[in-house]
Amino acid sequence: MAAEQDAEGRAAARPLLTDLYQATMALGYWRAGRAQDQAEFELFFRRCPFGGAFALAAGLRDCVRFLRTFRLRDADVQFLASVLPPDTDPAFFEHLRALDCSGVTVRALPEGSLAFPGAAAASVGATPGGAAAGNAAPLPGQLCQMLAPAAGQGPTVDLAASVETWLERVCAHLGLGVQEPHRGERAAFVAYALAFPRAFQGLLDTYSVRRSGLPNFLAVALALEGLGYQAVGVRLDSGDLLQQAQEIRGVFRTVAAQFRVPWLESVPITVSNSIDEEELARLAQKGSEVNGIGIGTSVVTCPRQPSLGCVYKLVSVGGQPRMKLTEDPEKQTLPGSKAAFRLLGSNGSLLMDVLQLAEEPPPQAGQELRVWPRGAQESCTVRPAHVEPLLRLWVQQGQLCEPLPSLAESRAFAQLSLSRLSPAHRRLEQPELYQVALSEKLQALVDKLSASSPRESPMVGAA
Amino acid sequence: MAAEQDAEGRAAARPLLTDLYQATMALGYWRAGRAQDQAEFELFFRRCPFGGAFALAAGLRDCVRFLRTFRLRDADVQFLASVLPPDTDPAFFEHLRALDCSGVTVRALPEGSLAFPGAAAASVGATPGGAAAGNAAPLPGQLCQMLAPAAGQGPTVDLAASVETWLERVCAHLGLGVQEPHRGERAAFVAYALAFPRAFQGLLDTYSVRRSGLPNFLAVALALEGLGYQAVGVRLDSGDLLQQAQEIRGVFRTVAAQFRVPWLESVPITVSNSIDEEELARLAQKGSEVNGIGIGTSVVTCPRQPSLGCVYKLVSVGGQPRMKLTEDPEKQTLPGSKAAFRLLGSNGSLLMDVLQLAEEPPPQAGQELRVWPRGAQESCTVRPAHVEPLLRLWVQQGQLCEPLPSLAESRAFAQLSLSRLSPAHRRLEQPELYQVALSEKLQALVDKLSASSPRESPMVGAA
Repeated sequence: MAAEQDAEGRAAARPLLTDLYQATMALGYWRAGRAQDQAEFELFFRRCPFGGAFALAAGLRDCVRFLRTFRLRDADVQFLASVLPPDTDPAFFEHLRALDCSGVTVRALPEGSLAFPGAAAASVGATPGGAAAGNAAPLPGQLCQMLAPAAGQGPTVDLAASVETWLERVCAHLGLGVQEPHRGERAAFVAYALAFPRAFQGLLDTYSVRRSGLPNFLAVALALEGLGYQAVGVRLDSGDLLQQAQEIRGVFRTVAAQFRVPWLESVPITVSNSIDEEELARLAQKGSEVNGIGIGTSVVTCPRQPSLGCVYKLVSVGGQPRMKLTEDPEKQTLPGSKAAFRLLGSNGSLLMDVLQLAEEPPPQAGQELRVWPRGAQESCTVRPAHVEPLLRLWVQQGQLCEPLPSLAESRAFAQLSLSRLSPAHRRLEQPELYQVALSEKLQALVDKLSASSPRESPMVGAA
Repeated sequence: MAAEQDAEGRAAARPLLTDLYQATMALGYWRAGRAQDQAEFELFFRRCPFGGAFALAAGLRDCVRFLRTFRLRDADVQFLASVLPPDTDPAFFEHLRALDCSGVTVRALPEGSLAFPGAAAASVGATPGGAAAGNAAPLPGQLCQMLAPAAGQGPTVDLAASVETWLERVCAHLGLGVQEPHRGERAAFVAYALAFPRAFQGLLDTYSVRRSGLPNFLAVALALEGLGYQAVGVRLDSGDLLQQAQEIRGVFRTVAAQFRVPWLESVPITVSNSIDEEELARLAQKGSEVNGIGIGTSVVTCPRQPSLGCVYKLVSVGGQPRMKLTEDPEKQTLPGSKAAFRLLGSNGSLLMDVLQLAEEPPPQAGQELRVWPRGAQESCTVRPAHVEPLLRLWVQQGQLCEPLPSLAESRAFAQLSLSRLSPAHRRLEQPELYQVALSEKLQALVDKLSASSPRESPMVGAA
């Protein structure tokens, strides 16, 4: 049974495969004394996939596996402690350590059921709190709304009361009725600000940006300001993000002037909501008031092209070059074991990549080289200022030859690589093609094998 | 070290996460005495992703992890034995059991390098054969080309020689020179037929369907026919698949008549090559000569829509319904803990799904029910002949309530579900929307909470 659970746990998603937002929200609820509240959530979708009229329910097994094995390990809790604010109450981490899903109830469509938009596909009732699930009554009494000044000196303040005072002034300035901003939204902002006074960010578009989210945010930000805290920003998650950012910045400017809080003018505006490459370019255009862009789905799923067609072809057997010759020249392969080099100009710009046979001497910096650009009918010459070998030996006879780079090293190298690529090759629209050329010897081998085609180029079994 | 390897193995892809094609090819090579050949493969791509002019290399760590831990477990080998032909030589499975990657050499671009189309991004030199990697010389002597008749009675025949005889007759019939069909391709077909005489399938478009693949396939199929074996089909992986299938079927008909082999007329034609929904509809149209369709990438990556936007919303806290009210009616949620039912007509057709509050009695078969279709301004009545509850209780207070269905059960149920959906809802183009409705009580709760908006619907923290 323990072994079975262990195997199940290995197959299950790890609890930290989630958004940091979930951890900050958990801290916010815990800080607000709501960690033991019974709550029910529904999972559904609004539009059918593929422009169709139905979907099929699936994934229950993964969900159940996740719930059965959900436990934060010590290392998980230590990681969360390293990314949450340093002054987070240690009791919160004890709470996380004890957390399991023994209080969770799941109702769902059976696997393979038809599911339609807007109808609940699953419902999850949760009494979070693990071992404490038995006594799940809400905590009695008043929640602490008091916040100490940032500098640590001076009396604590009732933040919620201060926010109400500021709301009146903000509404008067913006020409809004003080009843217009949504009370529930404001309560959420205050709870968040109490949990993260140094990292308060408001999501403005739950109800109405102009009439609710923005005045509520300003009231909380100004109340925090009085205690020496600076709000870190606002976020928008719907509508015309560029246009709204413009309008919000305008409001920030007048409010900053009105209440003499200069930093408010430049509070970062972050946006999200299914942003793709085109929207990204639009949001990053000159004059945009958007300061931060959150991209999730598009990064994870590559909707523009979710797969890259790779080719894996035989090029030599027993040291003899092999080449696929076919009526479709695009499907032809390049024969033989090869080396590849990147040629650079004197300013470090990329000139071209050259493929040659493994036995050829590498191109020399400063020396003229004759090559055959792929797809061209003529050869040309190039004199590289620098030459870099491209393929490195990583595994030899099954043994790793050098340590693999860390993720951080790979990312740094990717950024360096991109910085060397000219904007003409990098641009989104009609980028210039980068040149790949063959050495004279490799081109001669291709010509020779092509001439003896089709009978004399035995290549077995590679499709 | 062992523990480290173990952890690495768990994170690595399992060797059987591959195409069965790889196992059949391995058997083919092994059967042809080529399992110890040294070979080199190159990995590259032909077109940059996203219409761009470059790509970044990545994935080396996964590749190395896979190679370091590559081992077929007993269960893996047993599975392969169950899907390969029953008369497969047991020595092949011993070969698989001993297989590791100790003979593999990998050269590749470092992680994060710029990579361009047509240039090798990685090269893998392999001496397959695991423990035997040290003595990797090709097997000396002649390969066995002899094949026994299917019935087991009568003399064995030199298949390759028989194929050459048939090739002359086929070429004469088709008006082709006997030198036109590609020899290497034919050698591959013969090797495959020797390994799988009862499951011979020819991939026709490696060189030229009409002038090479088709006559080579026919020669091998007719030679096998003489021994009592029936080829199982042909496959196409490029070009206009529908048009080529038409032409191939025509050739099959004349050859079947010419050589009096009636079954050849209806040899299954299978096609593949990045097939999506539209191409699938085209290939399945009336009069199509395509009998089998292979779909890989589109099934795995869902290129039309690689993600489904799901919503996960709070609907109740401490037993009190919660509802998100917002200026965007589409983003409004339905409050309260709910039950869902599917209403069916007397012929088993689906009428609509109804959402209601958990405390309401379920709809009764044969009784008229008043409901509010979503998005409609008016209520309507419906009299279902059958009523099915949709949500089942799977987990209660952390405990699984009933066994989860197996994958096979879920698939069967999905097929049953689909069969009950009308073609109007199932079609690809402009499908009819399926109706989801609210009970009168649920609609009344929505109306009540909406009327008290925005101040009176506290909902905290759900974005």
